[in-house]
Amino acid sequence: MGAAILSDLLTEILIPVAAAVGIAFALFQWLLVSRVKLSAERQAPAGKKNGYGDYLIEEEEGLNDHNVVLKCAEIQSAISEGATSFLFTEYQYVGIFMAVFAILIFLFLGSVEGFSTKEQPCTYSKDKYCKPALANAIFSTLSFLLGAVTSVVSGFLGMKIATFANARTTLEARKGVGKAFITAFRSGAVMGFLLAANGLLVLYISINLFKLYYGDDWEGLFEAITGYGLGGSSMALFGRVGGGIYTKAADVGADLVGKVERNIPEDDPRNPAVIADNVGDNVGDIAGMGSDLFGSYAESSCAALVVASISSFGINHDFTSMCYPLLVSSMGIIVCLITTLFATDFFEIKAVKEIEPALKRQLIVSTALMTLGIALVSWIALPSSFTIFNFGEQKLVKNWELFFCVAMGLWAGLVIGFTTEYYTSNAYSPVQDVADSCRTGAATNVIFGLALGYKSVIIPIFAIAVGIFVSFSLAAMYGIAVAALGMLSTIATGLAIDAYGPISDNAGGIAEMAGMSHRIRERTDALDAAGNTTAAIGKGFAIGSAALVSLALFGAFVSRAAISAVDVLTPKVFIGLIVGAMLPYWFSAMTMKSVGRAALEMVEEVRRQFNTIPGLMEGNAKPDYATCVKISTDASIKEMIPPGALVMLTPLIVGTLFGVETLSGVLAGALVSGVQIAISASNTGGAWDNAKKYIEAGASEHARTLGPKGSDAHKAAVIGDTIGDPLKDTSGPSLNILIKLMAVESLVFAPFFAAHGGLLFKIF
Amino acid sequence: MGAAILSDLLTEILIPVAAAVGIAFALFQWLLVSRVKLSAERQAPAGKKNGYGDYLIEEEEGLNDHNVVLKCAEIQSAISEGATSFLFTEYQYVGIFMAVFAILIFLFLGSVEGFSTKEQPCTYSKDKYCKPALANAIFSTLSFLLGAVTSVVSGFLGMKIATFANARTTLEARKGVGKAFITAFRSGAVMGFLLAANGLLVLYISINLFKLYYGDDWEGLFEAITGYGLGGSSMALFGRVGGGIYTKAADVGADLVGKVERNIPEDDPRNPAVIADNVGDNVGDIAGMGSDLFGSYAESSCAALVVASISSFGINHDFTSMCYPLLVSSMGIIVCLITTLFATDFFEIKAVKEIEPALKRQLIVSTALMTLGIALVSWIALPSSFTIFNFGEQKLVKNWELFFCVAMGLWAGLVIGFTTEYYTSNAYSPVQDVADSCRTGAATNVIFGLALGYKSVIIPIFAIAVGIFVSFSLAAMYGIAVAALGMLSTIATGLAIDAYGPISDNAGGIAEMAGMSHRIRERTDALDAAGNTTAAIGKGFAIGSAALVSLALFGAFVSRAAISAVDVLTPKVFIGLIVGAMLPYWFSAMTMKSVGRAALEMVEEVRRQFNTIPGLMEGNAKPDYATCVKISTDASIKEMIPPGALVMLTPLIVGTLFGVETLSGVLAGALVSGVQIAISASNTGGAWDNAKKYIEAGASEHARTLGPKGSDAHKAAVIGDTIGDPLKDTSGPSLNILIKLMAVESLVFAPFFAAHGGLLFKIF
Repeated sequence: MGAAILSDLLTEILIPVAAAVGIAFALFQWLLVSRVKLSAERQAPAGKKNGYGDYLIEEEEGLNDHNVVLKCAEIQSAISEGATSFLFTEYQYVGIFMAVFAILIFLFLGSVEGFSTKEQPCTYSKDKYCKPALANAIFSTLSFLLGAVTSVVSGFLGMKIATFANARTTLEARKGVGKAFITAFRSGAVMGFLLAANGLLVLYISINLFKLYYGDDWEGLFEAITGYGLGGSSMALFGRVGGGIYTKAADVGADLVGKVERNIPEDDPRNPAVIADNVGDNVGDIAGMGSDLFGSYAESSCAALVVASISSFGINHDFTSMCYPLLVSSMGIIVCLITTLFATDFFEIKAVKEIEPALKRQLIVSTALMTLGIALVSWIALPSSFTIFNFGEQKLVKNWELFFCVAMGLWAGLVIGFTTEYYTSNAYSPVQDVADSCRTGAATNVIFGLALGYKSVIIPIFAIAVGIFVSFSLAAMYGIAVAALGMLSTIATGLAIDAYGPISDNAGGIAEMAGMSHRIRERTDALDAAGNTTAAIGKGFAIGSAALVSLALFGAFVSRAAISAVDVLTPKVFIGLIVGAMLPYWFSAMTMKSVGRAALEMVEEVRRQFNTIPGLMEGNAKPDYATCVKISTDASIKEMIPPGALVMLTPLIVGTLFGVETLSGVLAGALVSGVQIAISASNTGGAWDNAKKYIEAGASEHARTLGPKGSDAHKAAVIGDTIGDPLKDTSGPSLNILIKLMAVESLVFAPFFAAHGGLLFKIF
Repeated sequence: MGAAILSDLLTEILIPVAAAVGIAFALFQWLLVSRVKLSAERQAPAGKKNGYGDYLIEEEEGLNDHNVVLKCAEIQSAISEGATSFLFTEYQYVGIFMAVFAILIFLFLGSVEGFSTKEQPCTYSKDKYCKPALANAIFSTLSFLLGAVTSVVSGFLGMKIATFANARTTLEARKGVGKAFITAFRSGAVMGFLLAANGLLVLYISINLFKLYYGDDWEGLFEAITGYGLGGSSMALFGRVGGGIYTKAADVGADLVGKVERNIPEDDPRNPAVIADNVGDNVGDIAGMGSDLFGSYAESSCAALVVASISSFGINHDFTSMCYPLLVSSMGIIVCLITTLFATDFFEIKAVKEIEPALKRQLIVSTALMTLGIALVSWIALPSSFTIFNFGEQKLVKNWELFFCVAMGLWAGLVIGFTTEYYTSNAYSPVQDVADSCRTGAATNVIFGLALGYKSVIIPIFAIAVGIFVSFSLAAMYGIAVAALGMLSTIATGLAIDAYGPISDNAGGIAEMAGMSHRIRERTDALDAAGNTTAAIGKGFAIGSAALVSLALFGAFVSRAAISAVDVLTPKVFIGLIVGAMLPYWFSAMTMKSVGRAALEMVEEVRRQFNTIPGLMEGNAKPDYATCVKISTDASIKEMIPPGALVMLTPLIVGTLFGVETLSGVLAGALVSGVQIAISASNTGGAWDNAKKYIEAGASEHARTLGPKGSDAHKAAVIGDTIGDPLKDTSGPSLNILIKLMAVESLVFAPFFAAHGGLLFKIF
């Protein structure tokens, strides 16, 4: 067995240092972005510093139009205010829900031993004594709240950065596409590094603080820490669903009246829903996604820690090895830091067609470097061999096997990323086929788009299956958990390229609204098209990692609930399985209908304004943006509760009434069915969006036969894009939270279910 | 324990008698339908006989126009020829595939004991000797071919009847909607009773013939009989997929050019794809569905028989109890016979709004009567208590418990039927909401339609889950198998109301093509609208029963393959589960894309004809129907092979390379995921179709604000309808065959997999 090379003290130092480096780097990037001034004074000489100003100088235009800058600043502050006010409203409502849920956690977990303060025999080693169930209740509730707050901070910071960066990207676009790209990407990096470092730091500090009470009871300590993941994911669920409904109600509403009926361009300032639409990008795609990936990160760390605590690491109190998941994340921050330099400093974007390769390079570089990083961490932080808890027995694992698990997850993520790119980028035949099918109208476009989404599931599922099989075989549930962590280890880079998309989208919106020239809009559109693909890739990562995380949590739940086997061929499990597989449909029905309903309301309002405000169409009168913002806000607040409640209450109800066997069936069913719908929904939506952009851009002979804007084929493509909106930005990405959240919730409540669950079967 | 009240001799007599009664009743109905003459001589006095001619006489019109009759006869023969020729072509290609597959069955099963002719120890009672594996190979191959042939005959007969009845329904529509209803419904009944009786009779005869060789080895006998189900379902798969692609390529192609571009009505004779479209209804909806439900019936009987053969029925050689599944089906024929009289003789349809209630009454009456029927059969054909094989042990079951299982399936079917009706009939708010969303265009229509489909999954899944839980708990796998049988016991009525839809659809097409009056078309449209709902109900039954059947077959497979538990938390099983859940997506991607591609080809051809044939739009020239028929035929033959191969080869490949654990994961995954997609796809499609019809019919104040035909809302509804076509008629209904077929195939090949499976894991 032996001990790790890295000493405990060094571990205690390295983790916070890595987090601090990440935060410092994020702040430095922020500083760079903030150099783009949003006020009319001296802003012309700003861009010269990076040395390639000479090359792009011929493209510069409108640099001296101070009115444009003022206009951009004004629009930016409107978007920022809208987003801030929505998030505050959202947090108020969700805050109530979270408070109630925190009380539930305390009551359920506290009641396991009847709120006794006496020490109890440990769950996994009955001969030892562990802290009382009441302590678990208190600390789980605490860490739940901590996770929720960290998630809120993550989402909120992301939104602040994005609304800070959008107008700056627009202004930089005047100097050329390369400058705009760097600004957008840097801003994405700010978000990525802040979130990754923040998540790591809070987790690290909590573990150390909780340890003051728990001392040697690592089993209890990490069981309590799991609440952190639950809190993070619960917030993420509401963030994704609420933000998703907000953004898509506005987007669909704006498009249906603006583009389809009134024939005005996207983001035209005459459209009353345009501010709401741009606010939506920031609260849905940015804040929602930030919370979501933070949740995944928190959960995969928790899942790994819980399993480790009952493996030899925990039993032998080997602190460094125990912290292996945190060390992997620390290494991830450093690797991503280097990777970011490839995008912002080592290379430069000189043409539109270089954008996608630059983003793709980020994925490849980070994956390659991280593989080395994981090897290093596995070598110094793990003993050469150790045992891992595997459903009641200890399995012998070697350190290189664990390296293999993490790398498996990392590379499976890359495969998923590239597959997603292939199916959603308009550089390849799948999206081009979809665009081509617009020739015969919207119906064939939808049929081809749905088929594309279904097909795009195949390779990711095989990648996930291989990843699961290998890491499961090598290191049981711990293998799965670290594979998930591996997929998420480059989260800072992932978030950077993910956040880059909505920022570019917003930048385009601001250019349009500020009445900037056609060429500026073309540049931001080019950034945005690449952003659609990266957004789909980001969703692919989120879904893939969610599948692994849920399985790891599920495994931990089964261990904690002391179920011997989840046998499909017992009626209790099978009904759970089939009902679980149904839940993603129920959830999607709710969220899609919510978007549809809110969009209808928005359409009525936009139509009303066009019909009743004189001079609006001619651009002589200003629309009433605030009413549209209010419609989106009200709709999302009202509509996010039922799907949220469905997800959060299902494990509680099933566990309490039907018991742990049925609940494990539900978790497995939701997992295997939800993954498929989530991937296909995201990719279908991304493909439709880019098929439309393909026709609009007219970059190839084929694309020009379908266009231009306003042609029948283009109209059909717009319909597809509109249908895809709720699929790719509301129901699809929320589903991965559904599967993770139900799993982590089951794990947190496992002590209660194991003690008092299955009431219905007990009665009959 | 004791013996059953019914003697073996009486059982031997009752079953064939019931089948004979069914066949006689079908022929009698055919005779009644054939009284409507399709020649110009004396047809005026024909309709007077039923006594209510007086009431409807005021509606009669165009009775003396002999040209119309001749025209109808001509169109009918064109449709009939097209359908016959397609089916022959299809059977030729599928015939080759089936022959190859028969050889595979023989080789795989024969190789289990190295083609030895020596008797072997039995699988379940090792102390006895059973027939050699080679006999199993030969008889399984034989019964596979027999099942395939019976399936072909079922589909073909259905098609023949439907093409016989369509023009007759049109002619009767001249006398009023009541007459037309009776003709269409009677024709449906011919198909229903022929299929039910035929399936029962062939199964009964095969069992008796095989018994001559097998003698007392019931275990071997019923294992061999399972091939019958496999043959039936394999044919059904190709029938559904091929027919589905055929019909939807023609339908989508005809609609896209005719309705959307040229603004001519549906089924207008000027549309070159119109004959292909009408042929499609007969080969897809009729022949495909006939094969499908026959397959379900055959498989559920086989599943029940296999389990029974290793339970006390088989061990004690209790022939009557063994034949319980066949007796339930026999009772079903009698019950359905009485039920049919409620539609054709006891009540009469006097107005359009009575059609749907009349069809609904069929469901209720048959379910109520059948409940009594099952009680009777369970009382006389079963001992008061007996034991059922339950994964290695024998479980004691009482006869009333088994009654409960069958009734559970029957009533779960009714719940599924009514839920489907609620979500797809335009009499209720879900479809009306979808129609209303057409106000804002096709995009919202699609979003609402998809959401409706997702939502419609909830209640059926709960119904299936409760059915499974109860019957599983009461009588293990046998309970599930007889529950499936219960759901299918009223198959004759189910098929009658199911076949009624396409017949009415065709009747409307013929009316339009023959240039009959507007009022006739309205009457057939009213019949057809009810038919859309009943078609969705039929699909609901098919899917629900498929879920139960697959689970029963899956259970039998697990028993035969001697797997102790299908534990989700073993890597082998879990990867099977997640990949299995992906298969329905892969399959749907293939079939949807096929329809899309074939439809594009059809669109090009129809456009070409409109552009190049002078006088076509004006009705002065005839279109070239034959080319369109050829396009549909070629496309469906070519495109049905890959999805067919995917389904048929997956169990073979997985079982051989990865072994029985992974295969059982695949089966469970495909089952729980496929059911959801199948239900949502069918209901979404049905809802879109009826939302369109709702707007067209303009029967309410609300509907009139959306219409009339040609309004923007109506155009949006047509787009939804077109998208729904492949969902509801190609991919959706094929999925239930996918899940059944993979299960029954695994069961047939189980001896091979158990002996030689899992090569890949054995090598590494």
